[in-house]
Amino acid sequence: MITVEEVKKALEGVMHPETDRSLVELGMIKEIRVDNEQVRFTVLLPFMDAPIKDDIVSKARAAVENLPEVKKVAVKLAEMTQKERAHFISAQEKRAGLAQQFNRIEQVIAVMSGKGGVGKSLVAGLLAMALKREGYKVGLLDADITGPSIPKMFFSTLKRPKNSPMGILPVESGKGIKVMSINLLLPHEDDAVIWRGPLISTAIKQFWNDVFWGDLDYLIVDLPPGTADASLTVMQSLPLSGVILVTSPQELAGMVVRKAAQMVQHMGAPMLGLVENMSYAICPNCGEPIEVFGPSKAVATAARLGIPLLGQLPLDPLISTLCDAGRIEEYESEVMEGIARIIGGETTDEG
Amino acid sequence: MITVEEVKKALEGVMHPETDRSLVELGMIKEIRVDNEQVRFTVLLPFMDAPIKDDIVSKARAAVENLPEVKKVAVKLAEMTQKERAHFISAQEKRAGLAQQFNRIEQVIAVMSGKGGVGKSLVAGLLAMALKREGYKVGLLDADITGPSIPKMFFSTLKRPKNSPMGILPVESGKGIKVMSINLLLPHEDDAVIWRGPLISTAIKQFWNDVFWGDLDYLIVDLPPGTADASLTVMQSLPLSGVILVTSPQELAGMVVRKAAQMVQHMGAPMLGLVENMSYAICPNCGEPIEVFGPSKAVATAARLGIPLLGQLPLDPLISTLCDAGRIEEYESEVMEGIARIIGGETTDEG
Repeated sequence: MITVEEVKKALEGVMHPETDRSLVELGMIKEIRVDNEQVRFTVLLPFMDAPIKDDIVSKARAAVENLPEVKKVAVKLAEMTQKERAHFISAQEKRAGLAQQFNRIEQVIAVMSGKGGVGKSLVAGLLAMALKREGYKVGLLDADITGPSIPKMFFSTLKRPKNSPMGILPVESGKGIKVMSINLLLPHEDDAVIWRGPLISTAIKQFWNDVFWGDLDYLIVDLPPGTADASLTVMQSLPLSGVILVTSPQELAGMVVRKAAQMVQHMGAPMLGLVENMSYAICPNCGEPIEVFGPSKAVATAARLGIPLLGQLPLDPLISTLCDAGRIEEYESEVMEGIARIIGGETTDEG
Repeated sequence: MITVEEVKKALEGVMHPETDRSLVELGMIKEIRVDNEQVRFTVLLPFMDAPIKDDIVSKARAAVENLPEVKKVAVKLAEMTQKERAHFISAQEKRAGLAQQFNRIEQVIAVMSGKGGVGKSLVAGLLAMALKREGYKVGLLDADITGPSIPKMFFSTLKRPKNSPMGILPVESGKGIKVMSINLLLPHEDDAVIWRGPLISTAIKQFWNDVFWGDLDYLIVDLPPGTADASLTVMQSLPLSGVILVTSPQELAGMVVRKAAQMVQHMGAPMLGLVENMSYAICPNCGEPIEVFGPSKAVATAARLGIPLLGQLPLDPLISTLCDAGRIEEYESEVMEGIARIIGGETTDEG
């Protein structure tokens, strides 16, 4: 007589082709039923349209068919629940972090705000560019899992990360910045990632542990708004050299940025300084500067936080145009280049 | 001989003055040590500066001192870790949801974007105001736990929610909108709420279950950016009548808003329409409209999502000024009043 235990044991020998973990360990096998010489079981897939689906099913089926007394095998397919997917991802994660052992990353700088839409991704992108222009080797990790903006700014057509024996390879921008973002991995750029916190943390840790960044002088990390899971994970799991805070002229933004600053202090990460974005716009008609969000509060905010004001960026429609076209690297910003020199000087003194 | 068990039992009889749960149940008692006739234990506080601290300590001390053989009691105070605080909050939560039974809320409308900084809170606030002007009874639930903006927009000085036998009372704005936000509960408005997802979900559920909203025609829910815990909890735990999506003219924002739309569809909530914020600014110098974020994409985005375009709001420095001064209710927006009439008509037809 065949037992459920024997079937399970056979399936424990079947490895997931992409992860070196068995289907059983990954929680991909459910409802094993044995009825005389017939065996039925369900294979759970993280996503129904996984391209390696057929490969997995045929391997699992073969393993069970090879058992002596088995005459017939019926395999059902089902999609994982959010919870099962979480288990799948974390079981995968335990595997390795192989890439991380080969990475040599000198400085990790997080760009944070607490507030959404003040231009964190823009500052992160422009800083990466400015450091690149200074001759440094630069990577850009998009830690905004549910609202990733980086790929759209850097790539006009969708590029995909490739696998290597060392781990996932980041996608290189036109100017040679190494970029990793959840949006490079999604089937469509506007697919929603409806994940609760633990999955978000796991994804960020994978971007650190399993991406083969190679040798970098700077890894810039673009944080999402808020002081919840993503920010916590970055501060707890990545060796931050410093944090740059981004604000806008609104007092409202200032308040939320102070929350972020409090978190940074609480977590013991060094604050490098404040950047105010959207400080003013230039009227294309009359050429006058307009304070569309009211007068700048950058000096006061920086003083209140006790950190240097690194610079102020204007609200320039050209930025929107270039960002929307994936051509942010063409934007030249003296302000940002000044900031890159400050950062370069500061962090190199220490490093 | 006194035993640890006896001490614990005595402390099980000590109720937290604000929650009707015992200190032991709430995880507030740690490290009970008995040494002959001396008892030592630690009282854990969710926040060190809790005003009821002394009350709790003296009650706990008295309960143990009342045990027959006890001669001396030493009480130490410590602040809870994030994990202990999570237990504390969820133990508290089990208690009731009493308020919810007394609330009569006709329509719950969520304002969402996915993208940060496009003006969700502004749209939520102006919509609440416009509905109020139409004569409806309106509440405003700020579901942005780590970056709450609503109180600053509505109150020039900090107001505190009061307790009632039915539950927490929301704070009323000048024009009579009932507001609840985590920032009304924090010691300082710029205190960071460094919470992972589960705690954020619990807080939002409490704003629904334990706040005595009373009779409302509309409860407007201001969601944070992203498609993670807060948005999931609102869509899973609140009976949404509909969702309004907010975007800005940037294509980048459009992409993230499409992610949000996908989530709404996935969760089966009805979409009421799209509002584009910051569509243009008026130059105070020459009076010309300027497209600071590039040309509007509202019509295309709404068409792509298959939902009506409800309206477009300008980028008006007066909004920033009024928001920063807690005087948003003074702002009059024809666009928003039009939207309120559409919403009022639509939802009343159904209701």
